[in-house]
Amino acid sequence: MGDNKKQVEEITSMSEDFARWYTDVVMKAELCDYSSVKGCLIIRPYGYAIWENMQHELDRRFKETGHENVYMPVFISESLLQKEKDHVAGFAPEVAWVTHGGSEPLEERLCVRPTSETLFCDHYSKIVHSYKDLPKLYNQWCSVVRWEKTTRPFLRSREFLWQEGHTVHATAEEAQEETIRMLNVYADFCKEFLAMPVIKGRKTEKEKFAGAVATYTIEALMHDGKALQSGTSHYFGDGFPKAFNIQYLDKNNQLQYVHETSWGVSTRLIGAMIMVHGDDKGLVLPPKVAPIQAVVIPIAMHKDGVKETAQMIYERLNKKFRMKIDLSDKMPGWKFSEYEMRGVPVRIEMGPRDIENNSVILVRRDNGEKITVSMDSLEEELEKLLNEIHENLYAKAKAMLEEYTVNAVTFEEFETLLNREKPGFVKAMWCGEKECELEIKDKTGGVSSRCILETEAPISDKCVCCGKPAKHLVVWGRAY
Amino acid sequence: MGDNKKQVEEITSMSEDFARWYTDVVMKAELCDYSSVKGCLIIRPYGYAIWENMQHELDRRFKETGHENVYMPVFISESLLQKEKDHVAGFAPEVAWVTHGGSEPLEERLCVRPTSETLFCDHYSKIVHSYKDLPKLYNQWCSVVRWEKTTRPFLRSREFLWQEGHTVHATAEEAQEETIRMLNVYADFCKEFLAMPVIKGRKTEKEKFAGAVATYTIEALMHDGKALQSGTSHYFGDGFPKAFNIQYLDKNNQLQYVHETSWGVSTRLIGAMIMVHGDDKGLVLPPKVAPIQAVVIPIAMHKDGVKETAQMIYERLNKKFRMKIDLSDKMPGWKFSEYEMRGVPVRIEMGPRDIENNSVILVRRDNGEKITVSMDSLEEELEKLLNEIHENLYAKAKAMLEEYTVNAVTFEEFETLLNREKPGFVKAMWCGEKECELEIKDKTGGVSSRCILETEAPISDKCVCCGKPAKHLVVWGRAY
Repeated sequence: MGDNKKQVEEITSMSEDFARWYTDVVMKAELCDYSSVKGCLIIRPYGYAIWENMQHELDRRFKETGHENVYMPVFISESLLQKEKDHVAGFAPEVAWVTHGGSEPLEERLCVRPTSETLFCDHYSKIVHSYKDLPKLYNQWCSVVRWEKTTRPFLRSREFLWQEGHTVHATAEEAQEETIRMLNVYADFCKEFLAMPVIKGRKTEKEKFAGAVATYTIEALMHDGKALQSGTSHYFGDGFPKAFNIQYLDKNNQLQYVHETSWGVSTRLIGAMIMVHGDDKGLVLPPKVAPIQAVVIPIAMHKDGVKETAQMIYERLNKKFRMKIDLSDKMPGWKFSEYEMRGVPVRIEMGPRDIENNSVILVRRDNGEKITVSMDSLEEELEKLLNEIHENLYAKAKAMLEEYTVNAVTFEEFETLLNREKPGFVKAMWCGEKECELEIKDKTGGVSSRCILETEAPISDKCVCCGKPAKHLVVWGRAY
Repeated sequence: MGDNKKQVEEITSMSEDFARWYTDVVMKAELCDYSSVKGCLIIRPYGYAIWENMQHELDRRFKETGHENVYMPVFISESLLQKEKDHVAGFAPEVAWVTHGGSEPLEERLCVRPTSETLFCDHYSKIVHSYKDLPKLYNQWCSVVRWEKTTRPFLRSREFLWQEGHTVHATAEEAQEETIRMLNVYADFCKEFLAMPVIKGRKTEKEKFAGAVATYTIEALMHDGKALQSGTSHYFGDGFPKAFNIQYLDKNNQLQYVHETSWGVSTRLIGAMIMVHGDDKGLVLPPKVAPIQAVVIPIAMHKDGVKETAQMIYERLNKKFRMKIDLSDKMPGWKFSEYEMRGVPVRIEMGPRDIENNSVILVRRDNGEKITVSMDSLEEELEKLLNEIHENLYAKAKAMLEEYTVNAVTFEEFETLLNREKPGFVKAMWCGEKECELEIKDKTGGVSSRCILETEAPISDKCVCCGKPAKHLVVWGRAY
């Protein structure tokens, strides 16, 4: 129990210092490590296994919706990056520049891709000729680089892993449908795979992506009441296509510009998941994404038949679930807290008495509940339990999201709510002017519009900031 | 049939110009395209799907042998790259240098990783402390950059996709075993998945990897009689560990250096596969790696029930195989040659008469054979046929490899053989001196040692070049 206690104490409690709690969790659960290059992360096996599970499921959903994977170069020439002027203005200040190949200076500087709209558009301009070539629904898995000043593991780093979908369509309507389709794929994935509820909406002009006509976002609420933008889907109209001359002959033999979208999620989702589900003991992983879904820990391992039974149970379950068995000579108490800290959804304990009774004990990570089940029905019981844990994690996160999503009509209400210890999401009306967004940010010390709720009913007719006629219902928050 | 003919004519024949044949195939089968950055490739959906299938199978084999995936940064600082002197000497002349982040010059230049030994060693020096931490068996999937002067699609490009395994072990013996284990994983993968026979052996000192104690290689023989290095596995001893100070406490509480390996294969395997199996009609894809294993092409599609039956057959088979159906209004002849050019292993034809007879026709890409089979046993027949095609492709490639692997005792024999139109592999004895390797290269206009065959019996006792006592039996060839 000494060991046990020690392990747990190493993680700062959430209430004491949420930022330190987060760093403790990602480092002690061995999800990542710092590298010798400032702001670039090493993703360790346990962290990468989480990303692989996310990738696998997202990729399946992308392919199901007709998308194909490709790979574009890691470099973009300076002239190509400059082809769309809003885009280059947005990204040029934060790209890494390659100036030399070997010992020779390059004729033209190359940036390491911060995002690949320009590369996809350049390629599409060569391969799209006729309406028969449309739509093109491409996606790529890769890393991108943005030279951020301040960085935090998974949330903001100079290099991160992501996927970026880039599609071109014959009409604006089809491209708009695609934008929303992929936003929904993200939101469904968060709910069904990460047990993470999100708010969907449109970004304001100020917050939208450089070069986009409209940016849609999924926003999640962290344990500390802050918002995290967790995925975006952009509709570009024909701005890029005009800059890159992506034209096709329609059925009437008329030249038309295509309409474009892009959408992406990144390893930031790992950070989101940690801050939505984690607790003072460490990580809490939703079962579908957990690299280890259940760990078998024998009690009184030296007693006759215990080790063998544990091994047998492990092998049986390993056929159906992602399992681990810990037969090391550490104390059971140490093992318990180790796998709790690592967020393993279920611990399977068994000692001599359990074996005598033909049963094992299942212990839930999400609520600590212990259940004694018969060895005969272990597969069914574990499957049921993993589903229950998923549902419970989602329900808990959803309840918090609902509790901390509140309306404000006056600026006083607005400010008070967003100055709570957990600011949460505050819904308030907005006139549509950038000046009000800036004023709000200024007066509240950093509150930003998270998204416009396009389909919800207005809660008043005046802008919460200037009092002029309101145009949109907006969700506001303090963001990562 | 006009369309049909036209399609085929577009590909240069192998005998006319093998290099152009290759470029025609990779471009017209839409495996890749050139990008706006010289020497960097765009991998298109059909090419990327091949890579995904390779990745999936290799990753399975890596995990089966106990390896875990991680992700290291894309950048290496200049000082880190310089820590191991042989290594930096080998790679510094061909790295891309990042000198600016945004508008600010960096304090220290960063190179885009050409390979990640230095990053893995730096990480291992932090996380390895005790013999209990060993072995560490890590792998990463990523892209690397080497600033090559001349490039060719998949074979040599400035950026390419690969995996790099990096492992550290308690003893030299364990590390050596790992080196050979992974060489065998590669060779087995080539045989069992790509139907591609390879020669396994050790590189000479001249040809080994920068910083390695020993480099092992798999070498494949292309249709034009040239050799292609298709994968390598390196044993590093404790050179890097000493440079990076990777030490552990052994069971007797003594500090010891770890022993290290690394191993990699890349998208070059796509090039290898094309040049081993392809023919004048285009690509020939081995069934296990083919993105489309069989394509359904209805004949006389407008006739009653043909389209519906084709669709039904497609849906049935799609449950078990990677299928495509072509219901476009192009002529069947055009479709036949299109999917032949794209290397689809089996074409499934059916017209009204076949449907009447409850049968379909399976046409093999590898040898053109047509087989009429009953619709009732289609799944079994297709599965059997795909296996047969795999075996046949392997047997054909193996027969060519054997035909073109010959012994030479005198230098005259050696030269004559390597000056054949298809030079192939020539086995000859070697004294072990670099001077003879250089002299051979010089006298023959580019012949290089491919690998030392460590376990085969000598074929004479004198070096084929200088006549002094021979140390090794070496395979020589003209390489890509």
